[in-house]
Amino acid sequence: MSKPLPAPLAGIFPPLVTPLRDRDTFDIDGLERMIEHVLAGGVHGLFLLGTTGEGPGLSYRLRTEVVERGCRAVAGRVPVLVGVTDTSFAESLRLANCAAAAGAQAVVLAPPSYLPASQEELATYVTSFCHVAPLPVFLYHIPSLTKVGFDAAIVRRLLDVPKVAGLKDSGRDMQYLHEVRQLAAGRPEFSILVGPEELLAEAVLLGAHGGMCGGANMDPRLYVGLYEAALSGDLKRVRELHRRVIAISTAIYTLGAPESSYLRGLKCALCCMGLCEDVLAEPFQPFGPSDRETIRRRLADLGMLADSDNR
Amino acid sequence: MSKPLPAPLAGIFPPLVTPLRDRDTFDIDGLERMIEHVLAGGVHGLFLLGTTGEGPGLSYRLRTEVVERGCRAVAGRVPVLVGVTDTSFAESLRLANCAAAAGAQAVVLAPPSYLPASQEELATYVTSFCHVAPLPVFLYHIPSLTKVGFDAAIVRRLLDVPKVAGLKDSGRDMQYLHEVRQLAAGRPEFSILVGPEELLAEAVLLGAHGGMCGGANMDPRLYVGLYEAALSGDLKRVRELHRRVIAISTAIYTLGAPESSYLRGLKCALCCMGLCEDVLAEPFQPFGPSDRETIRRRLADLGMLADSDNR
Amino acid sequence: MSKPLPAPLAGIFPPLVTPLRDRDTFDIDGLERMIEHVLAGGVHGLFLLGTTGEGPGLSYRLRTEVVERGCRAVAGRVPVLVGVTDTSFAESLRLANCAAAAGAQAVVLAPPSYLPASQEELATYVTSFCHVAPLPVFLYHIPSLTKVGFDAAIVRRLLDVPKVAGLKDSGRDMQYLHEVRQLAAGRPEFSILVGPEELLAEAVLLGAHGGMCGGANMDPRLYVGLYEAALSGDLKRVRELHRRVIAISTAIYTLGAPESSYLRGLKCALCCMGLCEDVLAEPFQPFGPSDRETIRRRLADLGMLADSDNR
Amino acid sequence: MSKPLPAPLAGIFPPLVTPLRDRDTFDIDGLERMIEHVLAGGVHGLFLLGTTGEGPGLSYRLRTEVVERGCRAVAGRVPVLVGVTDTSFAESLRLANCAAAAGAQAVVLAPPSYLPASQEELATYVTSFCHVAPLPVFLYHIPSLTKVGFDAAIVRRLLDVPKVAGLKDSGRDMQYLHEVRQLAAGRPEFSILVGPEELLAEAVLLGAHGGMCGGANMDPRLYVGLYEAALSGDLKRVRELHRRVIAISTAIYTLGAPESSYLRGLKCALCCMGLCEDVLAEPFQPFGPSDRETIRRRLADLGMLADSDNR
Repeated sequence: MSKPLPAPLAGIFPPLVTPLRDRDTFDIDGLERMIEHVLAGGVHGLFLLGTTGEGPGLSYRLRTEVVERGCRAVAGRVPVLVGVTDTSFAESLRLANCAAAAGAQAVVLAPPSYLPASQEELATYVTSFCHVAPLPVFLYHIPSLTKVGFDAAIVRRLLDVPKVAGLKDSGRDMQYLHEVRQLAAGRPEFSILVGPEELLAEAVLLGAHGGMCGGANMDPRLYVGLYEAALSGDLKRVRELHRRVIAISTAIYTLGAPESSYLRGLKCALCCMGLCEDVLAEPFQPFGPSDRETIRRRLADLGMLADSDNR
Repeated sequence: MSKPLPAPLAGIFPPLVTPLRDRDTFDIDGLERMIEHVLAGGVHGLFLLGTTGEGPGLSYRLRTEVVERGCRAVAGRVPVLVGVTDTSFAESLRLANCAAAAGAQAVVLAPPSYLPASQEELATYVTSFCHVAPLPVFLYHIPSLTKVGFDAAIVRRLLDVPKVAGLKDSGRDMQYLHEVRQLAAGRPEFSILVGPEELLAEAVLLGAHGGMCGGANMDPRLYVGLYEAALSGDLKRVRELHRRVIAISTAIYTLGAPESSYLRGLKCALCCMGLCEDVLAEPFQPFGPSDRETIRRRLADLGMLADSDNR
Repeated sequence: MSKPLPAPLAGIFPPLVTPLRDRDTFDIDGLERMIEHVLAGGVHGLFLLGTTGEGPGLSYRLRTEVVERGCRAVAGRVPVLVGVTDTSFAESLRLANCAAAAGAQAVVLAPPSYLPASQEELATYVTSFCHVAPLPVFLYHIPSLTKVGFDAAIVRRLLDVPKVAGLKDSGRDMQYLHEVRQLAAGRPEFSILVGPEELLAEAVLLGAHGGMCGGANMDPRLYVGLYEAALSGDLKRVRELHRRVIAISTAIYTLGAPESSYLRGLKCALCCMGLCEDVLAEPFQPFGPSDRETIRRRLADLGMLADSDNR
Repeated sequence: MSKPLPAPLAGIFPPLVTPLRDRDTFDIDGLERMIEHVLAGGVHGLFLLGTTGEGPGLSYRLRTEVVERGCRAVAGRVPVLVGVTDTSFAESLRLANCAAAAGAQAVVLAPPSYLPASQEELATYVTSFCHVAPLPVFLYHIPSLTKVGFDAAIVRRLLDVPKVAGLKDSGRDMQYLHEVRQLAAGRPEFSILVGPEELLAEAVLLGAHGGMCGGANMDPRLYVGLYEAALSGDLKRVRELHRRVIAISTAIYTLGAPESSYLRGLKCALCCMGLCEDVLAEPFQPFGPSDRETIRRRLADLGMLADSDNR
């Protein structure tokens, strides 16, 4: 049923938040609302169960529901990528099979986050996974969370595995991204997407294929616009939109304990904007009233609240 | 059915390896053999599905089997602790319920290893978990794997939660252990067990209650003997056995990539000793023939191979 | 004698290597040759005694000589910045006074590298230094070497100190650079220069004032050309030159132990190019014949050797 | 004039604080007072210009004065070790020559703290230094400050250099200390001293030769007593004194920013005890009145203030 993945995958793929009703109850209406919101903003696809989607923090039952209901709601309008990162290979594979059955186009796999593996072992891990995975696989490079990432030398080797379709680079080291782009020059269908939205402008200006921008949950048009400006080389507009991207992340992702300020800030903002509740999976807690008021005020200052939200 | 947990829990609690037949097939005979081996060596209890047991690397089905078959094989002879560390609160709880149903005496919980939480959030996480957990809970402090551990100030607060029964300290920072011991002076039934076997001697000499020594999978008598010597203040014997502990870990846990040298070395040694195969859960791979031969030779040099193993 | 510093300082400022004859003997001819080489390539100024110049690794006598002879050789043709980073405030100040006397235009100051200070203490440190320093001060943000850098919040405060003239950002975190640029928007004469040459393209495209590119010791025209292309928004040329920058750093800075591969590779390349010997200050050692041959071959492949060097 | 170094050096060697009048003015009376205070407490020698002595933070002139005046005040009563750690080999050597001329017995050398070296380069660095150094050399392992320490494999190699007389281990990893002790078994005159006072008890119980305890600046008798109790195997007394050591470090070294809480707390306590002013070299600042009052109260609670100090 599922359509083939465009190659290279290019554009803006929001790592969708997972709306929850409580710790282990999925808010299906919220998810559908979020999906319509970002699709209306022109995004090129979706990334379910990523870091922003709290994938590894959800029970397996809930992850399965998100994949099934998410794919059904998208209904083939854009490609869907599914995060299958887990500490257990078997569970990652189970989730990949669930993604394929639901009609997703690709899966996204970071190294297991508990016991770190050597680079050699990571290469074998990915190769073994590709051997049995039912969908194309994106490497997810996020060493700040998994302690080890995919070194450039290992990416070079994994470029030989046809099922490896691309890289999500959330390493925040642009030199790494530039090196990997150069290594992948011989595989033009290999897609390189940058994770942190603050680095989208330069990534696309210098040749990456797009980004998985958490902020696109709030304002998809902004990141789509920045992507398009960078693609067309409209530097004046790039600088203008990039400035706004930095202003948003400085205002919304920096409140409270730094470990969780991004996730709590983002979900709180979506709540202020009326898109979903700011229930988070454990171990995270939503902001209290005072911090929430700060976020609301900052959103208002940024002009991100509709008049009706802005009381 | 389950007997109450001794308070404070004291002695040697090997973090049992999980014998596997392949990536996702449990070797029940191997587990039973391992259990009889360590019980014959006089250990005071067992820790299933810890880091050494590759808990987070196993599928949920397999983890459930290990708990059920392990508890059945132990049959109440010693207390069984079960590692329930997971990136998802709901799955940790599910496993804790499974442990209680199987007759285990306690669970061991490290912080979620993917997205790091603030200390404040970790305190809430543990408190919420204790609120619903069916068994006493040991805090598992292992910041090298989970990026954040339980700071001493948070341990102090969690000492007020009656269900928090102890701490497994794998932080390798003895000052932390000393501080926590001093903080817990008012709760004499609170058990402090050290993780790294190389630190067992000093931990017990200075007042900790015992250790969860991976090496006890190979030679349980050695660690039990060291524990008893330290408890009785027999410094001469402590130094002699401690020297052997360091010699074993220097010889067996240091081959190949440092990320996985402990686990690969330990399981390879158990294989050379005829106790179980050295199949590892992904992303880890057993040693090849040359490294295995090195381990076998080092075991022989240490006198750890029976004559029949020692060809 | 010294001319005022342009504000904001903009362009390419090579962190000049320090040619040595042996561990503690300065090669004055080599320094003069290097200065003429980079000035002929169109650079906008020089940075003496930076990390690339092995500043902290040289004796005080030798540092003084470098400043005096370097300034004399430049003879006012371009601004000279002098690295004064040291573990001792008093010695940093002494070197700053020496720089002023020699006719340099500014000094560059990183946090003391031995005992790390808190952000609050760093702010006081810089303020105290500016109170007595005879020249404008650039903040040098290089947390990989000094363990702590200047957090954005502290840069914001230090923007109020008129003598703080700019920032050299070697933190490799472009989000930090973007945030600092935005914070400094109200002080248009504040100069933001990026350290790692691999990030020069995007830094200038998005508004930074230039870079301190180590590679400009070898090929100053390349980095000046990239700077100018970025400044004028010639994206096609930016991508082309940026590709070459990445190719050079991938080829020349990656041989041998990673701790010193940049410095050893760069000085070895300069030696192959006939610009200076590759003597390094302790604890670093030049490459042996085989590694040197590898560097020579890579330089030849990159077309960086004149025919006469290329035997 | 200088007496030979006992081999192995054993006992308590306080890393003496450096009393200052202001940023760059030495308080000679304070130093003499400190020396008499610790000698009266029975210490076995002194360590000048270590981390606690703010060695790398002082100007070269001041470091020279500390060495000369310190050695003169000790007047051969106990061995004096001098910290010569510096970012510049030439300056380390100059200071070592000054130490020899002043009558010190050994120097203590950590890796250069700015640009990190590979292990191979560190071995060459130490060997080269020993080739020209006029005194025995202690390796100073403190990776938290120098980013790289001396790996056990490198210590093993440096054991072959006769001038390498011992190791100060401030790595806080007791497994490393145990491994190094075992490696050095064949050189019984090689001295292993532990840095952090919180680890003194176990280090000596298991075979190390003593410690360089910062707290001995305040209460030398306590650490000497703990050393002697551990040496004689009096476990009951070890536990009692160790508890007090942990209580002191928990109370005195934990106030304010963690980067400098040890140094500020220690010097503030010495000031409250009337031993010296709490002037610190930049970038550190003494506590304000409120924090100082907290330290004074905690000292009083610990019974560390004479009645006359305790108003």
